[in-house]
Amino acid sequence: MLAAGVEAFAERGYHATTTRDIAARAGVSAGALYVHFRSKEELLHAICRRGHERALALVGEAVAGADGPEARLRAYVRTFTSWHAREHLVARVVQDELDALDPEHFAEVAARRRELEHLLRGIVEDGVAAGAFAVDDVPAVALAVLSLGIDVARWSPRSPGRSPEQVGDLYADLAVRMVRA
Amino acid sequence: MLAAGVEAFAERGYHATTTRDIAARAGVSAGALYVHFRSKEELLHAICRRGHERALALVGEAVAGADGPEARLRAYVRTFTSWHAREHLVARVVQDELDALDPEHFAEVAARRRELEHLLRGIVEDGVAAGAFAVDDVPAVALAVLSLGIDVARWSPRSPGRSPEQVGDLYADLAVRMVRA
Repeated sequence: MLAAGVEAFAERGYHATTTRDIAARAGVSAGALYVHFRSKEELLHAICRRGHERALALVGEAVAGADGPEARLRAYVRTFTSWHAREHLVARVVQDELDALDPEHFAEVAARRRELEHLLRGIVEDGVAAGAFAVDDVPAVALAVLSLGIDVARWSPRSPGRSPEQVGDLYADLAVRMVRA
Repeated sequence: MLAAGVEAFAERGYHATTTRDIAARAGVSAGALYVHFRSKEELLHAICRRGHERALALVGEAVAGADGPEARLRAYVRTFTSWHAREHLVARVVQDELDALDPEHFAEVAARRRELEHLLRGIVEDGVAAGAFAVDDVPAVALAVLSLGIDVARWSPRSPGRSPEQVGDLYADLAVRMVRA
């Protein structure tokens, strides 16, 4: 049902999709869908929450396995970017439809986004403190690195030919170039 | 009418918007709208065409006034990025709803996008030839620089505090770092 929601929202947008459309796509009755999600917004919330939790878990694991600011930055960007290339439908729904969430659901998802942002800022700040990176405006540069990874979900389906891992490696290099002293 | 279309598409998405919604927003009758645009798709096409023509004209002018690959790259990225921060509603509609265009309109807009891309690739290639830049995969890095500027239209309305010009200058620096030898 989540997969059907992702496909429907990605194809037509949240506001143009009905719970009936999603049930039909999932091959279940509207009643069966309703047992799990009382509204279209609840389904969107489940998609956004899972997407963020998954990205956060993968990035956290990758960073924990790397030593030093440059290796940690590479691990972060490679994992974050390749996730956006691989899960481009989920990622696009999450980015495009955030504003359709109820305020409390939006706040919960925004908290996950801040965790991702703080983890990245910490890596960049450590690199600056160690003299390996030279960055004047850490929040702005961290936002740019995240933005670069996020936008992969928009363009990568239109530009096949590179694997998610290849895009991840290339973007890890670009991120290091963006911050290196 | 174009402005009303941009607002309506940005708020609810193309598929959830009717020509009636747009006419009401513009304060005209559905008949008056129809005189100018025979369909919702024609209005979207006009928005996409104008947006691309405007961005292309501004970037072309900025690059023509700069000397040498680094100055030309800075001029390109500063202009492209600040346009996306300033015209974020138009830019988001253009990016998000491209797939809703008729095939011939899509092809026309795609041609403008290729012009923007080729201009940027040319600058990067000139820099590599001059030894000022070191880039292995010029098309991929040009795409990343464009992607970084485009995604500003998504995040900048949520992160106020920097002017379009400040974001443009910061991104020009980041782009130079991404390619510099």
